[in-house]
Amino acid sequence: MQSLQNKKVLVIGGSSGIGKAVAAMAHQLHASVTITSRNLEKAKTVAAGNTHSGNLLEGNLSDHMHAFQERLVGSLRIVKSTIPNMKEGGSITFTGGVSTDRPIAGAWVTGLGTASAEQLARVLVMEFPTIRFNAVSPGYTDTPMWDGIMGANKEAILAGIAETLPVKKIATPEEVAAAVIFLMSNASVTGEVIHVDGGARLI
Amino acid sequence: MQSLQNKKVLVIGGSSGIGKAVAAMAHQLHASVTITSRNLEKAKTVAAGNTHSGNLLEGNLSDHMHAFQERLVGSLRIVKSTIPNMKEGGSITFTGGVSTDRPIAGAWVTGLGTASAEQLARVLVMEFPTIRFNAVSPGYTDTPMWDGIMGANKEAILAGIAETLPVKKIATPEEVAAAVIFLMSNASVTGEVIHVDGGARLI
Amino acid sequence: MQSLQNKKVLVIGGSSGIGKAVAAMAHQLHASVTITSRNLEKAKTVAAGNTHSGNLLEGNLSDHMHAFQERLVGSLRIVKSTIPNMKEGGSITFTGGVSTDRPIAGAWVTGLGTASAEQLARVLVMEFPTIRFNAVSPGYTDTPMWDGIMGANKEAILAGIAETLPVKKIATPEEVAAAVIFLMSNASVTGEVIHVDGGARLI
Amino acid sequence: MQSLQNKKVLVIGGSSGIGKAVAAMAHQLHASVTITSRNLEKAKTVAAGNTHSGNLLEGNLSDHMHAFQERLVGSLRIVKSTIPNMKEGGSITFTGGVSTDRPIAGAWVTGLGTASAEQLARVLVMEFPTIRFNAVSPGYTDTPMWDGIMGANKEAILAGIAETLPVKKIATPEEVAAAVIFLMSNASVTGEVIHVDGGARLI
Repeated sequence: MQSLQNKKVLVIGGSSGIGKAVAAMAHQLHASVTITSRNLEKAKTVAAGNTHSGNLLEGNLSDHMHAFQERLVGSLRIVKSTIPNMKEGGSITFTGGVSTDRPIAGAWVTGLGTASAEQLARVLVMEFPTIRFNAVSPGYTDTPMWDGIMGANKEAILAGIAETLPVKKIATPEEVAAAVIFLMSNASVTGEVIHVDGGARLI
Repeated sequence: MQSLQNKKVLVIGGSSGIGKAVAAMAHQLHASVTITSRNLEKAKTVAAGNTHSGNLLEGNLSDHMHAFQERLVGSLRIVKSTIPNMKEGGSITFTGGVSTDRPIAGAWVTGLGTASAEQLARVLVMEFPTIRFNAVSPGYTDTPMWDGIMGANKEAILAGIAETLPVKKIATPEEVAAAVIFLMSNASVTGEVIHVDGGARLI
Repeated sequence: MQSLQNKKVLVIGGSSGIGKAVAAMAHQLHASVTITSRNLEKAKTVAAGNTHSGNLLEGNLSDHMHAFQERLVGSLRIVKSTIPNMKEGGSITFTGGVSTDRPIAGAWVTGLGTASAEQLARVLVMEFPTIRFNAVSPGYTDTPMWDGIMGANKEAILAGIAETLPVKKIATPEEVAAAVIFLMSNASVTGEVIHVDGGARLI
Repeated sequence: MQSLQNKKVLVIGGSSGIGKAVAAMAHQLHASVTITSRNLEKAKTVAAGNTHSGNLLEGNLSDHMHAFQERLVGSLRIVKSTIPNMKEGGSITFTGGVSTDRPIAGAWVTGLGTASAEQLARVLVMEFPTIRFNAVSPGYTDTPMWDGIMGANKEAILAGIAETLPVKKIATPEEVAAAVIFLMSNASVTGEVIHVDGGARLI
């Protein structure tokens, strides 16, 4: 990775997991880094990852769609407020996920959300050609987010998933962060989605 | 196309354009057809097609996203209310569009909307495996929707677009309808998007 | 499907399986149909389907690539000889397969072959814009090809595969044929791949 | 990019263009680098980039396919000979190109070749799960290859192409090389294609 000296990097959700790893890596590359974070409990409920949200026929549609809309509108609000302050050559990287390509029963809202995040990286390229837009699509990644969801079984569950992957390991936050740093550094990459999933979308 | 005798077909927006052609074709194949339609003026504002909605930096985010959310939530409401009444082997076909694959400046909301409609066809497959879900992705199609947008220039504008396409013609509503009928008839096609665009997404 | 009266349809490999179903369906729609066929034993060795061809490290590279090259060059030879005799509006449909999207261990040559067939449908669109090119991508289909490969276990093996699919059934040759007929009939569909796989590429 | 200390990197075609940039960057990251190169004249005729090879109806099919087959079989020969000597965690990166997604008239062979290189990165993942396989897909890149093809007009032609791209610039060999280094360094990225094309595949 090229040095990020004299660059400003803003990481939304930079206090834990992948965001924390991005912030640390950008800092190490001499960027000036700002992070924002939310209450962890709240963050869990609108997590970027593969969370099961239940069957469409059960429950209320507004409840199902709440996290999706908060996430999408939230992303657009950030784009709207940051772009006027960005220099030519700046870039924005969104977080998609493996459920775009390999939808999972019970996680239809997540599959809509990751697909929308990845599509944002394409549609916005055509709107703001001096800014680059990309997305990273993580598979299962070893982050604190899973502590709450998997509890004491986290290690065993992730080890079981690792066995099914071509690379036989769960991604680390640092591996996903390296993709984010690559995307923000490379002036000829735009509208792109990089999958850091150990091959999950192929099996 | 196999006969649709003894099948019930519901066409949302069946009073004009592609929907009207689907209804007519299903009727001709002996299905029992029900259509719903909206006020034409309203329909135009939430049209499925490639309508330019303006730059993200200008105007209000809620205004930009209104049509998108109405369309997505509207689709989900229809799914939620029809599935309990559908027999095994039934299917739902959504309408996407070429702006999923080839985003157009000024039409970022449309590009999000078509991508979401096509993604619905994938995520719902995993939720309701006895029902098939698919999408049709029309390019420029010769429908009354363009009368309002292009006015007296419609014929000339569409002829100019036709020249740029590999097939040198604009799609007819009947051609898009034939794809819809194919998708509803074929018991081994699910999670699929058929592009009826004259090759627009390749050029 | 619209009538194919006064149309000429040539089916390569039209004596069994999917090709036979295409020929029968085209005939039923009043096309003038010609079929070619090969010795069944030979056909099996260059089958379009998901046949395992062995590990790249074992055996001879020419042997591994023989079927691939015969199939690709054979397709191109047919294109080269038929196009000069085709009228504007004619079309060619290739056979790809699910191993393009979901490669299978032991079947890397098949995955290359199906991807090349589907890519032919895209690259040729730009070469011959008055002719349409498309591909059909079947998943596991109940054809005589599997008799030789699966023997007496065919029925049980296919039933087991069916259980894993969203639609809980193996495709019939007629379902794949219906996709081929759709592609040859629709004047606004080109460069397209239709997957008739029961949702196999999503699971 | 993480250090490549104690890593061995082999660059096929490492004496000019993208390959030379990969070799230089790997060397700078402390890898032990070996390059192979061919006679420049020969290399030009089987160039990885977007070279027009002529209409399928004209000329001899073997001539058209010669470069494709040499390139594909050459890649497979290298895979076959290097894998037995690779340690777990090693990886191979192929070179695809923008003509996979956006085929160009006159360049159908190139479009087949880039698609096959990208498909190799997917099918081989399932064959050799301890090795990672990826591809980089460059758009127009400012390399010496174009000197021979564009001659004295190279600078003007590339500037004209740059104007059409979202990022308004032609990729540098170093930008493509950075993608290759990322792919060889990231232990959770496999079966992936990174596009370094300035957004060419979206316009």
